[in-house]
Amino acid sequence: MRAEQLEMLLADVAAGRLAPGAAVERLRHLPYEDLPYARIDHHRALRQGQPEVVFCEGKTVEQVVGICERLEAVTRSFLGTRATGEMAAALRRRFPNLLWNPVARTVLLADADAPPATRGPVLVISAGTSDLPVAEEAAVVAEAFGTRVERLVDVGVAGLHRLLAATDTLEHARVVIVVAGMEGALPSVVGGLVAVPVIAVPTSVGYGASFGGLAALLGMLNSCAAGITVVNIDNGFGAAVAASRICRG
Amino acid sequence: MRAEQLEMLLADVAAGRLAPGAAVERLRHLPYEDLPYARIDHHRALRQGQPEVVFCEGKTVEQVVGICERLEAVTRSFLGTRATGEMAAALRRRFPNLLWNPVARTVLLADADAPPATRGPVLVISAGTSDLPVAEEAAVVAEAFGTRVERLVDVGVAGLHRLLAATDTLEHARVVIVVAGMEGALPSVVGGLVAVPVIAVPTSVGYGASFGGLAALLGMLNSCAAGITVVNIDNGFGAAVAASRICRG
Amino acid sequence: MRAEQLEMLLADVAAGRLAPGAAVERLRHLPYEDLPYARIDHHRALRQGQPEVVFCEGKTVEQVVGICERLEAVTRSFLGTRATGEMAAALRRRFPNLLWNPVARTVLLADADAPPATRGPVLVISAGTSDLPVAEEAAVVAEAFGTRVERLVDVGVAGLHRLLAATDTLEHARVVIVVAGMEGALPSVVGGLVAVPVIAVPTSVGYGASFGGLAALLGMLNSCAAGITVVNIDNGFGAAVAASRICRG
Amino acid sequence: MRAEQLEMLLADVAAGRLAPGAAVERLRHLPYEDLPYARIDHHRALRQGQPEVVFCEGKTVEQVVGICERLEAVTRSFLGTRATGEMAAALRRRFPNLLWNPVARTVLLADADAPPATRGPVLVISAGTSDLPVAEEAAVVAEAFGTRVERLVDVGVAGLHRLLAATDTLEHARVVIVVAGMEGALPSVVGGLVAVPVIAVPTSVGYGASFGGLAALLGMLNSCAAGITVVNIDNGFGAAVAASRICRG
Amino acid sequence: MRAEQLEMLLADVAAGRLAPGAAVERLRHLPYEDLPYARIDHHRALRQGQPEVVFCEGKTVEQVVGICERLEAVTRSFLGTRATGEMAAALRRRFPNLLWNPVARTVLLADADAPPATRGPVLVISAGTSDLPVAEEAAVVAEAFGTRVERLVDVGVAGLHRLLAATDTLEHARVVIVVAGMEGALPSVVGGLVAVPVIAVPTSVGYGASFGGLAALLGMLNSCAAGITVVNIDNGFGAAVAASRICRG
Amino acid sequence: MRAEQLEMLLADVAAGRLAPGAAVERLRHLPYEDLPYARIDHHRALRQGQPEVVFCEGKTVEQVVGICERLEAVTRSFLGTRATGEMAAALRRRFPNLLWNPVARTVLLADADAPPATRGPVLVISAGTSDLPVAEEAAVVAEAFGTRVERLVDVGVAGLHRLLAATDTLEHARVVIVVAGMEGALPSVVGGLVAVPVIAVPTSVGYGASFGGLAALLGMLNSCAAGITVVNIDNGFGAAVAASRICRG
Amino acid sequence: MRAEQLEMLLADVAAGRLAPGAAVERLRHLPYEDLPYARIDHHRALRQGQPEVVFCEGKTVEQVVGICERLEAVTRSFLGTRATGEMAAALRRRFPNLLWNPVARTVLLADADAPPATRGPVLVISAGTSDLPVAEEAAVVAEAFGTRVERLVDVGVAGLHRLLAATDTLEHARVVIVVAGMEGALPSVVGGLVAVPVIAVPTSVGYGASFGGLAALLGMLNSCAAGITVVNIDNGFGAAVAASRICRG
Amino acid sequence: MRAEQLEMLLADVAAGRLAPGAAVERLRHLPYEDLPYARIDHHRALRQGQPEVVFCEGKTVEQVVGICERLEAVTRSFLGTRATGEMAAALRRRFPNLLWNPVARTVLLADADAPPATRGPVLVISAGTSDLPVAEEAAVVAEAFGTRVERLVDVGVAGLHRLLAATDTLEHARVVIVVAGMEGALPSVVGGLVAVPVIAVPTSVGYGASFGGLAALLGMLNSCAAGITVVNIDNGFGAAVAASRICRG
Repeated sequence: MRAEQLEMLLADVAAGRLAPGAAVERLRHLPYEDLPYARIDHHRALRQGQPEVVFCEGKTVEQVVGICERLEAVTRSFLGTRATGEMAAALRRRFPNLLWNPVARTVLLADADAPPATRGPVLVISAGTSDLPVAEEAAVVAEAFGTRVERLVDVGVAGLHRLLAATDTLEHARVVIVVAGMEGALPSVVGGLVAVPVIAVPTSVGYGASFGGLAALLGMLNSCAAGITVVNIDNGFGAAVAASRICRG
Repeated sequence: MRAEQLEMLLADVAAGRLAPGAAVERLRHLPYEDLPYARIDHHRALRQGQPEVVFCEGKTVEQVVGICERLEAVTRSFLGTRATGEMAAALRRRFPNLLWNPVARTVLLADADAPPATRGPVLVISAGTSDLPVAEEAAVVAEAFGTRVERLVDVGVAGLHRLLAATDTLEHARVVIVVAGMEGALPSVVGGLVAVPVIAVPTSVGYGASFGGLAALLGMLNSCAAGITVVNIDNGFGAAVAASRICRG
Repeated sequence: MRAEQLEMLLADVAAGRLAPGAAVERLRHLPYEDLPYARIDHHRALRQGQPEVVFCEGKTVEQVVGICERLEAVTRSFLGTRATGEMAAALRRRFPNLLWNPVARTVLLADADAPPATRGPVLVISAGTSDLPVAEEAAVVAEAFGTRVERLVDVGVAGLHRLLAATDTLEHARVVIVVAGMEGALPSVVGGLVAVPVIAVPTSVGYGASFGGLAALLGMLNSCAAGITVVNIDNGFGAAVAASRICRG
Repeated sequence: MRAEQLEMLLADVAAGRLAPGAAVERLRHLPYEDLPYARIDHHRALRQGQPEVVFCEGKTVEQVVGICERLEAVTRSFLGTRATGEMAAALRRRFPNLLWNPVARTVLLADADAPPATRGPVLVISAGTSDLPVAEEAAVVAEAFGTRVERLVDVGVAGLHRLLAATDTLEHARVVIVVAGMEGALPSVVGGLVAVPVIAVPTSVGYGASFGGLAALLGMLNSCAAGITVVNIDNGFGAAVAASRICRG
Repeated sequence: MRAEQLEMLLADVAAGRLAPGAAVERLRHLPYEDLPYARIDHHRALRQGQPEVVFCEGKTVEQVVGICERLEAVTRSFLGTRATGEMAAALRRRFPNLLWNPVARTVLLADADAPPATRGPVLVISAGTSDLPVAEEAAVVAEAFGTRVERLVDVGVAGLHRLLAATDTLEHARVVIVVAGMEGALPSVVGGLVAVPVIAVPTSVGYGASFGGLAALLGMLNSCAAGITVVNIDNGFGAAVAASRICRG
Repeated sequence: MRAEQLEMLLADVAAGRLAPGAAVERLRHLPYEDLPYARIDHHRALRQGQPEVVFCEGKTVEQVVGICERLEAVTRSFLGTRATGEMAAALRRRFPNLLWNPVARTVLLADADAPPATRGPVLVISAGTSDLPVAEEAAVVAEAFGTRVERLVDVGVAGLHRLLAATDTLEHARVVIVVAGMEGALPSVVGGLVAVPVIAVPTSVGYGASFGGLAALLGMLNSCAAGITVVNIDNGFGAAVAASRICRG
Repeated sequence: MRAEQLEMLLADVAAGRLAPGAAVERLRHLPYEDLPYARIDHHRALRQGQPEVVFCEGKTVEQVVGICERLEAVTRSFLGTRATGEMAAALRRRFPNLLWNPVARTVLLADADAPPATRGPVLVISAGTSDLPVAEEAAVVAEAFGTRVERLVDVGVAGLHRLLAATDTLEHARVVIVVAGMEGALPSVVGGLVAVPVIAVPTSVGYGASFGGLAALLGMLNSCAAGITVVNIDNGFGAAVAASRICRG
Repeated sequence: MRAEQLEMLLADVAAGRLAPGAAVERLRHLPYEDLPYARIDHHRALRQGQPEVVFCEGKTVEQVVGICERLEAVTRSFLGTRATGEMAAALRRRFPNLLWNPVARTVLLADADAPPATRGPVLVISAGTSDLPVAEEAAVVAEAFGTRVERLVDVGVAGLHRLLAATDTLEHARVVIVVAGMEGALPSVVGGLVAVPVIAVPTSVGYGASFGGLAALLGMLNSCAAGITVVNIDNGFGAAVAASRICRG
């Protein structure tokens, strides 16, 4: 529940547009609500200005649907990451307006009353075709958090001209998220070109001595370009949350 | 060389206060200058809005002094990290105004004309006494980059009341840098309390299965609190640069 | 075979209620019994006060059924962990009273004559929904070993208020088992709140740099909260055995 | 400050034996006290029934002395681990009654009014001569926490008869702490012989593929003997705290 | 081709029982023979006294059959390890006398003329039921190499009495192969009881921090019992070859 | 105390050459003897046919001298490995006949009555000059255990002709110990040339990605030459014990 | 687009054989071309003298076909590695002349106008049957890059005679690619025999402590034979590119 | 001994300029010569066209001097790497013409008759000041092996303009050696710019998660730029040998 939602609800009560009993029903699950398998944090939006997001991996379809239903009941919207096609199908049966992005693996029930995104932009750069799912997860989440997003795809360090041709895009970004697997060198190069914060996302793309993304992760942590911060392997979601917080400042 | 410095220099030439030949001398090392053992990037301040900083570890005293002399010649100031006492002594003989912080291991020749810091504040939180050197490095660098800094020391997760008593300080920060060794859990707790970006700095403090900071690093990368980004082990410098870029937005 | 069972058996013989030959049949497999693929330790209950438990993973359905049959023949009960649904089905065909917990993955044939559980309570806390299987394994095993169990679910460190609201439950526990994946920070926080022993169970929940639970394991081993001990990744069973031994003291 | 100390202090005030002003002085640093480099948690003894212990490694001699002085001022006693000889000498100049155990590397100012130890006993078993410092740290800390301690030294698994000859000692322990380096197999063997909780402490004793204690740590975490819990490499202190908590139950 | 086989062949030629042309056919592939995907070393038996053994894992069914056919053509026998059921079925269609051991995953076409095994015995000890496949591989290979084998199963270190009861068996072995997963402590205990060479085989049995057998491997390499040597994880074959060489001395 | 020593002692008593009281003095420490810091296993020679050897690393000079004195009192001899020059000097003051090998880092007080070595020979091959200390440790220990030893030094795999020129030496060895650092490939090559057991000793010689001997260790464990067994990094002692046991068979 | 292709195209335009508009169509995607999921680098052949190669792993069949169509449109040819059978089938439907090598997992549409290969030869040596896919990938790619290739298969270090018999082949190679899994010792041996550059390719062939090729990789990096360089595990492609560049010099 | 040296020697004998006995003295140590601690391979220059180089690390000063004396006796020259100042001083006392490069840590006694270097050039690029020792080792060795060398220092990826300004130098190199620590991204960028072979040398420069060069090593192995090969961490020597072999083709 965003702060504006709470204000509107109270204004509705004050204006007689909403019966107190109905308001109570909406509010009674604050601060959190217990399902048999999860405790939903309904007031995170109030506390931190960002909605509770469902990490679907490792949950059953039933658990995902159950949690999303409770979120929708209170906030009229929800966002889930690492969703399978099966989860998306089950949610769409229940919420026909569901947006399912199969590349990003996200499910989104948009809040119809949310203000248009004005903050940002966040620039999401990805190094290779196989990094797209992680980059798209970052982009979709940042947009859902109310931030404008621009994208630059397939600009690996072995073909610098591709990156150098995008100088304009680089220069007007408020934050840059760089998504790369293999040796994870792209953030170092980008970090030397821009003056804004750079968030590096290593991916598990690679084989052999990439060790599931470890090589890219270590490369980014040891970047010789100062000012780069790093999130977990394949964690496009986390990068987007951090980028949104930066834009909100 | 900061953009303002360049503007002033050109204004001085225009106004006849500076002979063109003298201006050329000041400018001739742009964009960079070669020493036998290093290539100094004098226009980084123009390009990225932040000064070139000398990482002293692994360099000889002579190399450090040589690089600092060239930086001072162009920008009237310099900042070095991971400096030894021997380096500080050698620099002070050459630059009597040098500021040497033995806890942070920094050497700073402040730019007398730099505007007062108004951005921020950056809040630097450290978990234990042994994490202080890294936390102080972050604080000193952020200040040198023109950002106000606040500090909260020795607030480990095993004594939550210490942290919860500092709610006010937490709430008005623009960015939080959290410095912790051992299990590195503090950023997760802080990340659940604030709505601003959190930069986590793992330290090599610990023993046994901390494996030189690996445990703290992995803990921070896997944080269940969204929006946390991570820098290299003991990299207070990098966290400060990222925080300064966030504040500049 | 528990010590009381042995006493009863001997009393029955003394009172003529049990023919010596029948008693011999019951006792003859002591101290252990050989199957072609396993050697069953029937006197562990006498020696250590705890029943032999079958670790089903890596065994065939036939081996699991065979071992359980031998245990039942001697002790009238058995407990198996890491059981598959197929194993449970095969055992239920043979033992209609079998209790199968699909979340905990345990199969239990309860000893009808076991005294009611009075020791404890053991408090089992889990950090996230995905940690439930390991937490439930711990809870089911502790109950089967004669200890009362309480549960607290989905109380991650990024939402401290959830944990702080449970102070009463925390304070009257005799032992706390904390089950957490990802960064594994929850035991540190709990360890700072309680005065009783804390057993930390890292889980393989997570992705990327969690490296199958390694991040959580290292975090727990390096906890800054003293008095925390750790078991293997996903080893809810081991935590329950240790907790039961503590309660028995 | 232990609960009894607080009661006595209040009784002294009630009886006129202590002026209210003096009591205030004793109590005013509760709940904690700030030094420039540390925040001392004076009410841990009230909250958790165990004193604050100073981990000396990574602190300067001055910091250690400073923290110990503040602890002594409030509780009349202190305990420090991983202390160097230099720290011990500095403390003894200040506190002539200091107990310095060079093998355990502990400094102890005993509380003259502490009740005699009646709980336990904790049995500390060490595998080899080189494991003694860690084993002694565990023993000294457990005693300082009010627990009786027994010791069994140099009983490696390659000479089982040494261990089997100590059956009596094993059987009457309330908890067993097993300290071993190299392959870390001793806890498995002990765990199969006793019915009480076993806390395993891997040490960094070994070379080559022991990787600083990693081999022993992994061995203990994977023990086939149920009920064993593990602490960090060389963490005799943590094992002792856990054992004391178990004995207090 | 064993040395005796060569002698017999030449004797047959000398005695006119074998036409020189037929002998040439038998010998012409010495020293090795090229298949499109493998080079078979037919004279290893002459050079090293042990037959060429086919490691089936990672080969196709066709490749395995092709190699075995060539071996049979020269030596009248073959041995394959890590064979799948499908490979066994394909080989049996071609060689009706094939011996397929599904636990050991071996295929064997025995040499009908091989002398009876008199060397040894090799004692194969396994710690748990799940270690049986590796232990059986060792046993089958050692027998195929002409060594007598004895077995002791399910004698983990947490139940020492099981091992101590087998003293007689331990004492008359010429070599002991100890197969164990999890913490891999069994070889240390056995190594302290016997005076003969002990070959330790770590297995991948375990979970979590066993890291696919790494814990057992490190444990065995760091054994405090002198005289233990170690082979690769799950390498029952290698242990058997080494044991056979020891017995042949 | 070797079995022969015991027989002689009893024969001396029977013949009146030794007073029963004196014999008792010699025998009274059997089976083991307690020092404050170690428990000496005097009957290992009886039980396993090999003397107790002192691992000096991690012990103080006083502890080493103390243990050696007790061993000498019972067996008239002792052997220590990983001894420093300081330890050797202290022991020589006490035992003028001490043999100190500074390359092998061994101290030996030879048993004057030991029978001449007839078993073996053990061939010790080392790959490079820097591997000599480990190779010499193996050689000295094997000789002290009553085995003849031959040596082949500096025969790396990158210069095969050096190894191939030594075919005679290779062929008449009873066991081969191969000592190599860096990539540890030498045992694979030797293992393909000989028919006897090969014991591989990885050393910590190397730099960078040798990771303290890990590369050599892994190489040896994965050797494509069957029949190779491996000991811990730098463990020349362990290889020698294993080789001696093989020769004794 | 190779330099010769560009010259021919311009010549055709000059000679009136090609309409300028058609030439424009051919050239308009230079320097690169955007697909929704990839950015194709058409001028790499001009810049680096080698064609763009499609790494098919992690891409969908549709993406692979889409990229290959664009490459063919510009250069009349393409090469893909790590292709599945399904990808090959889809490409063959579109390009009947496609060459599909199921062992090497490559798809190749050969450039009919390419000059015959005269450079080299590159000698590709593989240690075992299971290393063939990687070795074949190297061979196919090197041939596609215009280099002659020779092969030597199944020549492991445990059977040196196989390698020594191939001295002639070794001596006339311009570069040697050595492909080996397990302990990865073969490059060291080859490196000692030849005077030309040796490129080592570790493979993931092996089990247990091979850790997915890590053992072979570390072995090759630590080779005692100077002049060996290494590529990623299973990276036959990269070795071939490097070898081709060497031959082009 | 280079092939030309051998020819000259034989020509001198034929022409009567050298007595046969003196020639024998020069040749008698072929093919190799035994010192007590090393076996010197005098005919490597004949076999592989490159001199035997002494790796001084881990050897004593006496051993280094001894080996160099023997090399000089046969070839009139020698080259040593990883030499300490103490070794250099000892050698200079013996060979006044010794060249000692303290940055590269090399000792060189140049062969006065060696032909001038015409092959190459090898371009050695280093990323940072701290990488200079490894880069210089590569440069000195390549020159000693008869190859021309060019250098480009301090051109990290975070300042691309430094590298792009050196296009001319990049384009006329025959081989490029790229030396970089930290994230090791420089070879990827260089690999995308040049068409010649690139040899990447990771260095141990860095801290924290660089893990002694592991991060740079993994980054280089996973480079997205094809055609890059890698040597061991800090192995400037190996890169130079490989580069020399490439130039010799």
